[in-house]
Amino acid sequence: MNDLSQQLQFINEMDKLKAVYRRALIKADNNRRENSAEHSWHIALTAHVLAPYAEEPIDVGRVTLMLLLHDIVEIDAGDTFAFDDSAILAEQSDKEIAAAKRLFGLLPPSQAERFISLWMEFEEAETPDASFAKAMDRVLPLMQNIQNNGGSWAANTVKKSQVINRNRHLERSAPKLWGFVLEEIEKATEKGWLQDT
Amino acid sequence: MNDLSQQLQFINEMDKLKAVYRRALIKADNNRRENSAEHSWHIALTAHVLAPYAEEPIDVGRVTLMLLLHDIVEIDAGDTFAFDDSAILAEQSDKEIAAAKRLFGLLPPSQAERFISLWMEFEEAETPDASFAKAMDRVLPLMQNIQNNGGSWAANTVKKSQVINRNRHLERSAPKLWGFVLEEIEKATEKGWLQDT
Repeated sequence: MNDLSQQLQFINEMDKLKAVYRRALIKADNNRRENSAEHSWHIALTAHVLAPYAEEPIDVGRVTLMLLLHDIVEIDAGDTFAFDDSAILAEQSDKEIAAAKRLFGLLPPSQAERFISLWMEFEEAETPDASFAKAMDRVLPLMQNIQNNGGSWAANTVKKSQVINRNRHLERSAPKLWGFVLEEIEKATEKGWLQDT
Repeated sequence: MNDLSQQLQFINEMDKLKAVYRRALIKADNNRRENSAEHSWHIALTAHVLAPYAEEPIDVGRVTLMLLLHDIVEIDAGDTFAFDDSAILAEQSDKEIAAAKRLFGLLPPSQAERFISLWMEFEEAETPDASFAKAMDRVLPLMQNIQNNGGSWAANTVKKSQVINRNRHLERSAPKLWGFVLEEIEKATEKGWLQDT
């Protein structure tokens, strides 16, 4: 196959991310479950809107591409709930690495290598770009749950401490947002949407 | 309201794009209709994959942000079918301008101005960035219809000449893709998915 055939095959394969459903609920669409494609759009846009709060210099173009790519592995590996048992989450990690090889491997080698490298940078969440991208991926579900009477937190009896830990990337990458998030988590706990432990 | 409150309100409002349904069908998800949020994700990713075919220099980061933003106006104005009557499409244009003012106007002024300006640049489709972005927005439904036995073309008796006109941005912005698209349109016409006029 030539490069274009490979690229078109990859683009077609991406349609499948629209059939991967998350726990998050879309209040604006009769509380149906959100899929990972529309979630990826929303956080990529969120990164542009909230980029002024980044504590360290970030390249918002790289952050955006990371966010467009970050869930593609779910086409093969499926979505896991953020607050599942750690054993489930560890097994998921192996599945996602195999998925990244197969899915990005549909592309010509130079693009495949670039995309896998960005995906791994996101997963490791150590660089300023990746840490900010990870923070966006985690803060948006929080906002959705707050808009929706607790949403997937309330439905799955999630603990306050779990949500705080999950959003800690913000503490480093956007401290002003971190302050806001801590206040919102307190309010959500007072309303009974999060378990107070 | 301070900047952060405005930004969070905008981000929450964006959830509504996930409830705007297009004519395109998702083969990978039981042929349900596609919404404009997941469509926006898919074309933003497509722009990165096909950027090497751009004839003129483009800033793929700007192209991506245009594509993330381009359909937001549909939250207020709704989606129209690409091949609707021109009178319907003209009326839609007025609705979209009002929608852009309201929706981007939720943001702090400097971001609102930047996003409206990018959206207008996309609509005018004259700069290399906007022309390439527009080409991506139009070529992906073509690929979806080809993968899906004619999809929304066949269901709405669309003409070959309409699809050729709609994809003409490619002729300027990515001639190599234009050649491929013309071949695919011919094949689709032979199969009876497009009307041969």
